[in-house]
Amino acid sequence: MPEPSVAVRPTLEAVAAHAGVSRSTVSRVINGGTGVRRQVMARVEGAIEELGYVPNRAARTLVTRRTGNIAVMIAEPEGRVFSDPYFGLQIRGISKELVAHDLQLVLLLAEGAGDRERMDRYLSGGHIDGALAFSVHRDDPLPDIVRRLGLPTVYGGRPHWEPIPREAALAYVDADNRGGAREAVRYLVAQGRRRIAHIAGPLGLAAGIDRLDGYRDVLFDADPSLVAQGDFTDGSGERAMAQLLDRHPDLDAVFVASDLMAKGALRTLRARGRTVPHDVAVVGFDDLTSVSTATDPPLTTVRQDIEGMGRTMARLLLRKLHEQGSGTRTQGAVITATTLTRRGSA
Amino acid sequence: MPEPSVAVRPTLEAVAAHAGVSRSTVSRVINGGTGVRRQVMARVEGAIEELGYVPNRAARTLVTRRTGNIAVMIAEPEGRVFSDPYFGLQIRGISKELVAHDLQLVLLLAEGAGDRERMDRYLSGGHIDGALAFSVHRDDPLPDIVRRLGLPTVYGGRPHWEPIPREAALAYVDADNRGGAREAVRYLVAQGRRRIAHIAGPLGLAAGIDRLDGYRDVLFDADPSLVAQGDFTDGSGERAMAQLLDRHPDLDAVFVASDLMAKGALRTLRARGRTVPHDVAVVGFDDLTSVSTATDPPLTTVRQDIEGMGRTMARLLLRKLHEQGSGTRTQGAVITATTLTRRGSA
Repeated sequence: MPEPSVAVRPTLEAVAAHAGVSRSTVSRVINGGTGVRRQVMARVEGAIEELGYVPNRAARTLVTRRTGNIAVMIAEPEGRVFSDPYFGLQIRGISKELVAHDLQLVLLLAEGAGDRERMDRYLSGGHIDGALAFSVHRDDPLPDIVRRLGLPTVYGGRPHWEPIPREAALAYVDADNRGGAREAVRYLVAQGRRRIAHIAGPLGLAAGIDRLDGYRDVLFDADPSLVAQGDFTDGSGERAMAQLLDRHPDLDAVFVASDLMAKGALRTLRARGRTVPHDVAVVGFDDLTSVSTATDPPLTTVRQDIEGMGRTMARLLLRKLHEQGSGTRTQGAVITATTLTRRGSA
Repeated sequence: MPEPSVAVRPTLEAVAAHAGVSRSTVSRVINGGTGVRRQVMARVEGAIEELGYVPNRAARTLVTRRTGNIAVMIAEPEGRVFSDPYFGLQIRGISKELVAHDLQLVLLLAEGAGDRERMDRYLSGGHIDGALAFSVHRDDPLPDIVRRLGLPTVYGGRPHWEPIPREAALAYVDADNRGGAREAVRYLVAQGRRRIAHIAGPLGLAAGIDRLDGYRDVLFDADPSLVAQGDFTDGSGERAMAQLLDRHPDLDAVFVASDLMAKGALRTLRARGRTVPHDVAVVGFDDLTSVSTATDPPLTTVRQDIEGMGRTMARLLLRKLHEQGSGTRTQGAVITATTLTRRGSA
């Protein structure tokens, strides 16, 4: 026996006929029953029950403009999203908050330009009420798309594209990346380290730029070749560390802009016969405990409350949704504190 | 300046007024232009262009019943989805196939019963054309929900809930879990191992049951206490290995139902002073190379083509969507081959 096809779902018309009312009366009942007599309401609800009618949310959306769905958009390849525990933690925070408000989290991954067109189509389609966006790199068309659509959006990580016109002021949640980086580098200086290198994150992301700026705040006269570039992945940290050792065999410390890159850097240091922290002290960033407590030695790192940042993003978005059409408007930028967690690597 | 609110998007009515045609003519143009004169078509398209009108897909959905969106549903907590590379690989395979057909992948995570109600609401809402579902455990209401909605669905992993009425025959893609497990255990036997234990996966999932059955096919008279239970996570493998060593200090091999559990088992063996493979040979399952090549020693394991399974799931679903309303119907169950990959651990 074939499965029932979409066409055999009971329709609004069938419910109307069954209850002996008009199509628009059924529609009014589905959307809250305003202006419908109690008796008629009961008859329609009975017909809905009897036929097993499921209101088509696409139809409801046309009326209420609310779907109960929130998109989380990550502009990274699947490979990174599913191997970097950062995203899992942030999504856990978001999910807890949305679930508490009975909202459905819808995750969209989009990397390339073609993906952006599909994303545009999706966002235009009335499937969601608002969006949370991560890893939005410089030149990404996404902020323009959501602005054009008037779609309430909160960013994870400070969006830094320039120039930012006043009216485009965006809501975002970010850690104090620059302050955290300064604390890490000052700690290495205080321990008597003299040749402190830096493995930077991608400079198309504010987190990459801000952590590099924090390093430079403290070591403003450091040799620029003490900085090597990574992309937040384990493998890029491994390669950047090798470059740094080639350029500066005498380096005695490295501040690494993410724990995953620090994990890779530790492998290179071991392979080159350097002991950590005796020969080279290592400080990471993030404090992803699944990484930072599993390395040998465990990582001294700058902790940020990743799950908490996810929750805060969701809360900011809920506030924006609540404000829609009310005239009030909170332009939110929330910067969360970081703290240095000391373990064995520095 | 406030962001434009949803209400200021140009409407279908505005386009109709601008083009001097009826609302239904605009609607016909948006949905393909059947029965609309070329001249009128051009005028409407001009008005759409000029006003920057974006067709509301919720409205289109009512007409075409196609959204261009495919849901991927994973019935696991976020923590597992983002820490087990299995899901990332499978989603990469799915994504490649959907992108090639210009379809948007929408990822939904749902674990608890409350999540299921929201998922039901979402699936009923006309936001998607079809679904791919993973990790559907025994007693999960999801299969009933998608059947009631007539939503084309393909499962990742054999759905094994019983009894399966004939008409409910489901489309799924799975690896030859039982055959792969048999090969692993036979390999250990051929190497002269005599006390071969098994760390099983969750017995609410076909993958857990089938791998255990494969072990039993070969060692049908083995002591049942040589089997310990895990849940496919690293930590559960660690604990199960400790139980097995307590019960059978003389065991000389263990077949583990996933690489992540095997990784945990290796930690326990090291902590208890057993060398691998000399004292205890270890064989895993999955061949997640990020795990199986990174352990010490690297894992001998049963390889399944996880990314390829994802692609196959997407293809099966596309075929089901294509068949909708056509009368033809392929009931698909695709079982993919497994192979033993030999590395250092056995």
